[in-house]
Amino acid sequence: MGKLYVIGIGPGGLDHITVKALKAIEESNIIVGYTKYVAMIKPLIEGKEIFKTGMRGEEERCREALRLSKDNTVALISTGDSGIYGMAGLILELKKDENIEIIPGITASSAAGSVVGAPLMHDNCNISLSDLMTPYEDIKKRVKLAAEGDFVISLYNPRSKGRPHYLKECIEIIKEYRDLNTPIAVVRNALRDEESYNLFKLGEFDENVVDMLSIVIIGNSKSYIKDGKFVTPRGYSI
Amino acid sequence: MGKLYVIGIGPGGLDHITVKALKAIEESNIIVGYTKYVAMIKPLIEGKEIFKTGMRGEEERCREALRLSKDNTVALISTGDSGIYGMAGLILELKKDENIEIIPGITASSAAGSVVGAPLMHDNCNISLSDLMTPYEDIKKRVKLAAEGDFVISLYNPRSKGRPHYLKECIEIIKEYRDLNTPIAVVRNALRDEESYNLFKLGEFDENVVDMLSIVIIGNSKSYIKDGKFVTPRGYSI
Repeated sequence: MGKLYVIGIGPGGLDHITVKALKAIEESNIIVGYTKYVAMIKPLIEGKEIFKTGMRGEEERCREALRLSKDNTVALISTGDSGIYGMAGLILELKKDENIEIIPGITASSAAGSVVGAPLMHDNCNISLSDLMTPYEDIKKRVKLAAEGDFVISLYNPRSKGRPHYLKECIEIIKEYRDLNTPIAVVRNALRDEESYNLFKLGEFDENVVDMLSIVIIGNSKSYIKDGKFVTPRGYSI
Repeated sequence: MGKLYVIGIGPGGLDHITVKALKAIEESNIIVGYTKYVAMIKPLIEGKEIFKTGMRGEEERCREALRLSKDNTVALISTGDSGIYGMAGLILELKKDENIEIIPGITASSAAGSVVGAPLMHDNCNISLSDLMTPYEDIKKRVKLAAEGDFVISLYNPRSKGRPHYLKECIEIIKEYRDLNTPIAVVRNALRDEESYNLFKLGEFDENVVDMLSIVIIGNSKSYIKDGKFVTPRGYSI
């Protein structure tokens, strides 16, 4: 009987993969993934059979990975954590009696946070602004409640051509609950090639620096910038 | 000049550390951390100088790590992600001109999620029930708003002797917004020695299986159990 590893490779730089993920990739004879993610781990998969699909090929990729895993050891690759907006959910939804192991990785908000300091040190949430599978009204409601609850907010998929105004509208919602001096970070390509970031105050946020490869992190009521680093205090009296 | 690495070692099992964290530990001549966490990486630190403190020694540990890093390469160890309820925030709050690099790790909710399936596949939040540094009223408010927003909720530090009733009260708050069939997972020692877990329906939750080493994950309105696995659908039409 074969095996299917559902692997989160972390942010994309080869150094931020876990030992467990490396071992599972090495053990696999077939690699399945979105073309761009497979390219990120190219040095690890030479000589292996590769099944790639483009964007929005998620279901095809998962069905193929499940099929192939009956007689092979297969690694299905997601960036970040396979269990957070990754492929682990769809695999479990589609699975029948295949042998599956889910291997977590560092999710994008953790990676982005480490680049700009320690913004996620207190209660925090991840919200995707993609409306492909979630009504925009639900997304806005979550942003509002997260802002009201003083969560540090990480926005995944913050901007795309089909919905350029969502990010701006969500930031406007957050402004109703947070001081205009609250720090916001925009981190592009965190912990992989071409990493870059911007830090803003909420009142001066410029959404034009944000693309689909970015994570946007909005601080809570106690977050601040110190020496160019974004810090959310845990609450120690120092 | 020395260097301070602020490292998240992930859940504790040596396989779930990143390559980058391993390299930084290897490069360091001094290891600083809570006694229990230092023990988890014992095979990696033989022959190195070690500075350990007990629970609630966080500030002492951080000050010592900063002091030692002036003339040494120091690894300050947190479990999970150093940037989520870890030591990265306190280090940045206390730092002066030390040379610091923050290395993220797999946070406890990601680790726990992978053990029981794919509960975190949609918008999700992390809330600590520890009231050492956060008023309980603020914690309850966050739980309420997260429940109202249909976030998947991961509870860190869910239970301790000093506040045995908090978890039960927070679950009661969540019941006001979620169906009683909503899955809840309690995962103890995720991805390390003595791992175990329980799955419940919200209406049948038993908080007695929860200890401080547990993470409690409450599904959203669409989460379900399939073949013993906790799945939150991302929303694909399959």
